[in-house]
Amino acid sequence: MKHFISMQQLSKETMNQILKEAELIRTSPRTINKQLFAANLFFEPSTRTKISFEVAQKKLGLDVLDLHKEGSSLIKGESLYDTAKTFEAIGADFLIVRHPSDYWMEDIEKEGELNIPVINAGSGKEEHPTQCMLDVLTMYQEFGSVEGRKIVIAGDIVHSRVAKSNAHALEKLGAEVYFSAAPGFEDYSLKYPYITMDEAVEIADAVMLLRIQHERHVFKTETDDYLSLYGLTMERAAKMQKHAIILHPAPINRGVEIDTRLVESKQSRIFKQMENGVYVRMAILIHVLKEWGIIHENEINERKMLNII
Amino acid sequence: MKHFISMQQLSKETMNQILKEAELIRTSPRTINKQLFAANLFFEPSTRTKISFEVAQKKLGLDVLDLHKEGSSLIKGESLYDTAKTFEAIGADFLIVRHPSDYWMEDIEKEGELNIPVINAGSGKEEHPTQCMLDVLTMYQEFGSVEGRKIVIAGDIVHSRVAKSNAHALEKLGAEVYFSAAPGFEDYSLKYPYITMDEAVEIADAVMLLRIQHERHVFKTETDDYLSLYGLTMERAAKMQKHAIILHPAPINRGVEIDTRLVESKQSRIFKQMENGVYVRMAILIHVLKEWGIIHENEINERKMLNII
Amino acid sequence: MKHFISMQQLSKETMNQILKEAELIRTSPRTINKQLFAANLFFEPSTRTKISFEVAQKKLGLDVLDLHKEGSSLIKGESLYDTAKTFEAIGADFLIVRHPSDYWMEDIEKEGELNIPVINAGSGKEEHPTQCMLDVLTMYQEFGSVEGRKIVIAGDIVHSRVAKSNAHALEKLGAEVYFSAAPGFEDYSLKYPYITMDEAVEIADAVMLLRIQHERHVFKTETDDYLSLYGLTMERAAKMQKHAIILHPAPINRGVEIDTRLVESKQSRIFKQMENGVYVRMAILIHVLKEWGIIHENEINERKMLNII
Repeated sequence: MKHFISMQQLSKETMNQILKEAELIRTSPRTINKQLFAANLFFEPSTRTKISFEVAQKKLGLDVLDLHKEGSSLIKGESLYDTAKTFEAIGADFLIVRHPSDYWMEDIEKEGELNIPVINAGSGKEEHPTQCMLDVLTMYQEFGSVEGRKIVIAGDIVHSRVAKSNAHALEKLGAEVYFSAAPGFEDYSLKYPYITMDEAVEIADAVMLLRIQHERHVFKTETDDYLSLYGLTMERAAKMQKHAIILHPAPINRGVEIDTRLVESKQSRIFKQMENGVYVRMAILIHVLKEWGIIHENEINERKMLNII
Repeated sequence: MKHFISMQQLSKETMNQILKEAELIRTSPRTINKQLFAANLFFEPSTRTKISFEVAQKKLGLDVLDLHKEGSSLIKGESLYDTAKTFEAIGADFLIVRHPSDYWMEDIEKEGELNIPVINAGSGKEEHPTQCMLDVLTMYQEFGSVEGRKIVIAGDIVHSRVAKSNAHALEKLGAEVYFSAAPGFEDYSLKYPYITMDEAVEIADAVMLLRIQHERHVFKTETDDYLSLYGLTMERAAKMQKHAIILHPAPINRGVEIDTRLVESKQSRIFKQMENGVYVRMAILIHVLKEWGIIHENEINERKMLNII
Repeated sequence: MKHFISMQQLSKETMNQILKEAELIRTSPRTINKQLFAANLFFEPSTRTKISFEVAQKKLGLDVLDLHKEGSSLIKGESLYDTAKTFEAIGADFLIVRHPSDYWMEDIEKEGELNIPVINAGSGKEEHPTQCMLDVLTMYQEFGSVEGRKIVIAGDIVHSRVAKSNAHALEKLGAEVYFSAAPGFEDYSLKYPYITMDEAVEIADAVMLLRIQHERHVFKTETDDYLSLYGLTMERAAKMQKHAIILHPAPINRGVEIDTRLVESKQSRIFKQMENGVYVRMAILIHVLKEWGIIHENEINERKMLNII
C-alpha cells in the first residue's frame, strides 16, 4: 500500500504496466462505476497539471474537490498533515498534492498516518512523477520503447524536478540520458554526462527542453543570448535526426529555451505531451486505486453514454 | 467554422434562430448526451456572466473547467494563445473567454490556430455578445420583436461593451437606438442620436441603464447628483409608457444610475435578464457546437431525470 | 418557510428529527433525483465547512456553484442582497452563506425578499448551526442522548460562534452546559457557569475545545503558557472519565488549546466530527428542501450506482 510519490519507487514492470494501460485508455476511455472524491491540493501555481488531473478525474467519472489556498483555513496556520487528514475525514478517497517542498511527504508522515493514497503532482526540485510518465508515454508512442535511445534533457537542470524524475526513470527503462545546461544550471550530484546543445541535436532521439525557472534563481538570468548559446534554435533543430522529437513540459518561454517557430513544428510533441498527460493520469489513478483496494476491476467500465430519451 | 466573438458577425437570421432556440429551452430544458468539457477562462472579475455560463453548461450536462488566474502558470508569463492551446490539448471542447483587451482574439490568431470554438464572454470596451443576446431575448419576450421599437441605452456609453454590442444588434434587428449620457460618457464615433433622460422616458419602449465604470475612469466621477441629472429617478420612471420596460446588465449601482426602488419594480426586467442569460447561453453553446460538428442533433435530448431506484 | 440561520429557531423535535435522518444517511446514502443547484457563498476563509458542504451536496447528486470573492463583481461594490438575488435569478435552488457579520441576514431582509432558502454556514460571533448539529450528532452517537450530560465548552468563548450555537442547543436538548475560559475570553452575557479546566476534566462527559481566534483579538494573546494554564494537557486528559470524549471544531492549534498527542487519541472524536459534518449537512439540506417544497419524498433515493456496461 504505497503512495505515488517518486519515480524511484517504481519498478520497470510497474511503469510499463501503467503506460500500457494509458495507451489503452487513449483509444478506449474508462469510467469508474462508483462515487469517489478526488481532492486536489495545490500549494504552488499550476495550470497544466491541475487541469490535466481534473480532466482525468472527470473522464473517470469522479467528483473533484479543490483546495483554494487563498480561501482556506491554512492561513489560520494548520499543518499539511491536518489539512490532509481533514480531507480524509470529510470523504476524499485520495489526494493529489503539488508542493514547493521536497520534504512535504516526510512532514506528513512525521505527524501521523493517512488512510487514503496520495499522488505527487510535482514537488520541490526533485520529483514530478506524473509528468515523467507522460513524457515516457510520448516517447513510447514514437519509438515503441526507450531502450538504447539517446535522450537529452536540456536547460535549468538544478531547479527542475522534471529533469530528475525523467533521468532516473529513463535510465531504469534502458535509455542513455544526457544533460545539457548553461553554466550554473548543472547539477553535479547526478552522474549523467553533460553535452552542448550542438552535440545534443546530432545524437538525440529526443531533446527535452526545460524552462528557466527565474522564480527559483537568486540573480536574474540574462536571457538575451540564452537561445543562441544554449537553446534550441532553428539552425540546431535542422541538424536533428529525421526521427528525433522535441519535448517540453511547459510553460514554454518562447524565444528563450526554444525558437517560437519550433513549438508547433513537425518534430515537436509538446501539445501531444499535454494530451498524453490526461491518459497517463487516468492510468495512474486506476493503478493506485486498485492497489489500495478502493476500486476493483469490475467497477471499471468503458465509457458509454447513456441514452436518456 | 467561426468563433462567437462579435455581434457584428451575426446575421439577423442567426440571431433570431438562436433566440428562438433559447425560448424553447426556457420551457423545455435540453441536455447533451456526450461528455464534453467547457473551459471558462476569465481574465477579469465577473459573477453574473461566469456563473451564468456555468449553470448553462451544467444544465446541458457538460463538465466545467475553470482557470483561476491567481493560481495559474500565467504568472509565469505564458501568452493567451499558449494557455488556450493548452486547454485544447488537455481536452477542452470549447473555450469561454472574458478579457480586458479588445484585441485578445487577434492576439491569439497572430500566434497560431485553435481547433476548438471560442465564445466571447465580454471583452474590452466593444463586445459582450452573450449579454446582448439575453437583452434582446428579454425584449422579444415583451414585444415579440424589436422592429420599430425605440430603445434608449443610457449611461457610461464610452466604456460600455454592452452598449456597443446592443446598439449594433438592435439596429440590425430593426429597432431605433438612442443613447443618453452624461458629459464625458458619450462615444461620438458611433452615429446614434443622443437624447436626455427626460426625453428618453417619454419615447422609450425600453430603457437600458448602464453602470458607471469607475474603474475605467481616470478621474473619480461625482456621483452625488448623477441620479437626479442623468439617472432613472422615480419621477422619470413615472413618465414612462405603460408597456415600457427597464433593463440593466448589472452590477447595479443603486441610487446612482437608478433609484433603488425601481430595481424590482413592475417595469423592471433586471432579474429576468439574468434568468434569460442561462437560456441564451445554452442556445449559443448548442448553436456553436453544432456548427463545429462537435455535437449533432440526435445528441441533444430533453432533460429527463433517470429513476435510479 | 424559514431559512436555516440560527440554532435558536429550531425546536428540540426538529433537531432530533434531523439528527435521526443524518444517522440514517451515514449507513445508507441518499441522492436527490432532480437537477438542483447549490450556491456556496463564502465571505470568510474556510476549508472544513466549505468542503463538507460540497461533499454533502455532491453525495446528494446536486450541482455546485462557488462564489470566489476575489474574482467576483462584489469588488465592484454590490450588496449581499443583490448577490444573493443574482444567484437566485441565475438558477440557484438554495444558498449556503458564510459571513463575518452577525447581521448579514437582517441586511438581506432589509433590502428585499429571497424566494430560495438560505443556510447559515457560520456567521459573526453568534451562530454556526450546522457545526453545532454535527457536534450534537457526535455526542448522540456516543451517549444516545445528551439529557443530563455535562458538556464543557472551553476556550475563546466570547469570539466563538460554535460555543454559542452549541450552548443554546445543548441546553434545549437537556444537557448541563459549562464554560471554561482564560481571563478575557469569557462572555458574561450568557448565564452558563464557568469552571476551570481542572474542574472540567473531572465532571465532563464531553470537553469541547475551541481555537483562540487570534485574528479577532485586538492584542496578541500570549500562547506560551496557555496550554498548561487553560488547555487540555496530557495530565488533565488522564483525569477525564473513561467514557468522556474530546471535541474540537478545528482548525486546531496543536500545543495551544490541546496537547498534540490528544488530537488522535482514543478519547478524541475530532476527525469523527468532520465525517459527521457531511451526514448532518445532507440531512439539513434534505430537511430544508422538503420544507420549502423544492423536493418531495419520492425524489429522494438510496444511492445505487448504475451499471452502464
